[in-house]
Amino acid sequence: MRVMGVDPGLTRCGLGAVEGRPGAALRMVAVGVVRTPADDDIGSRLVAIEAGIERWLDEIRPDAVAVERVFAQHNVRTVMGTAQASAVAITCAARRGLPVALHTPSEVKAAITGNGNADKKQVGTMVTRLLRLDAMPKPADAADALALAICHVWRGGVQNRLALAQAQALAKRGGPGANIALQPGYRHPGAGR
Amino acid sequence: MRVMGVDPGLTRCGLGAVEGRPGAALRMVAVGVVRTPADDDIGSRLVAIEAGIERWLDEIRPDAVAVERVFAQHNVRTVMGTAQASAVAITCAARRGLPVALHTPSEVKAAITGNGNADKKQVGTMVTRLLRLDAMPKPADAADALALAICHVWRGGVQNRLALAQAQALAKRGGPGANIALQPGYRHPGAGR
Repeated sequence: MRVMGVDPGLTRCGLGAVEGRPGAALRMVAVGVVRTPADDDIGSRLVAIEAGIERWLDEIRPDAVAVERVFAQHNVRTVMGTAQASAVAITCAARRGLPVALHTPSEVKAAITGNGNADKKQVGTMVTRLLRLDAMPKPADAADALALAICHVWRGGVQNRLALAQAQALAKRGGPGANIALQPGYRHPGAGR
Repeated sequence: MRVMGVDPGLTRCGLGAVEGRPGAALRMVAVGVVRTPADDDIGSRLVAIEAGIERWLDEIRPDAVAVERVFAQHNVRTVMGTAQASAVAITCAARRGLPVALHTPSEVKAAITGNGNADKKQVGTMVTRLLRLDAMPKPADAADALALAICHVWRGGVQNRLALAQAQALAKRGGPGANIALQPGYRHPGAGR
């Protein structure tokens, strides 16, 4: 399966795509970062991030998208921007009927290095080794996005394939929000006002 | 000018549109709320909110959008969802080249009631009076969205018209992120990776 990882951020939004399955060698499909200027207004920044992610989804055509789960307890100054960038990534994926998984930084670190408290260098080193790259992907946000994608390939397994099949079936039925169709007699509250 | 206010939230996203100008009577154009079920996955919820806001923008055709500014210091349990819903609202507006203004809850309360610490009932009462409504708009999120729109009409004035003219000129030049074109030799980082 092909997974696109997103390490959300307004200044640097890391993107990385990986192909593989649990127990087999992994292959890097793409890695990069969408940057937006800190002095731009929030609207322009979010629209630029959306455009970057959309282009990636068009080109990479992932089976699933893994986004870092943001916690409010973290750095208060940056957490709002991170939450906003993550919302854009989640919306872009869900709009296409792609399964979206959220993984915490500890889950990703534990999956990649065996240590939920690993530092950025340890994660980067393991990502480089696992994907047999010549050099560590930079910036760290790009390496983190690859780590998220690898984590999802490994943690997902059978669940991933089920979620993908379900998401595709639902997307065919009528696009975003179509999962509500599984509950007879239930009207999607977002559909009216 | 016609302003659409958004009180962002995942469970209830308040929407309200008002027409008017500083020093003149205000008119309510529309009021409502987009709801999403708490047990839906985050992707479906954000997509449903996006669809609701898009439909409003299509129908209401506002000159500007005012969104409540979210602070990380607030209720930690709900603040992430609020930030994510606000990101969707901001992105929808900015994608269309509409000026987006962020107002803090205190700014809105002060503008509407004269007291930055007013409670929800005071705000609702003033909104009802200012828009000459028969009853207080419900839920409170809908009244808050109207209050945001009124606040923006009053606080904006000449600045609003300048921002609108600028946003429209920039949108014509090349869509979202086109404000970068004003800085010669500067390449939009979101454009490459």
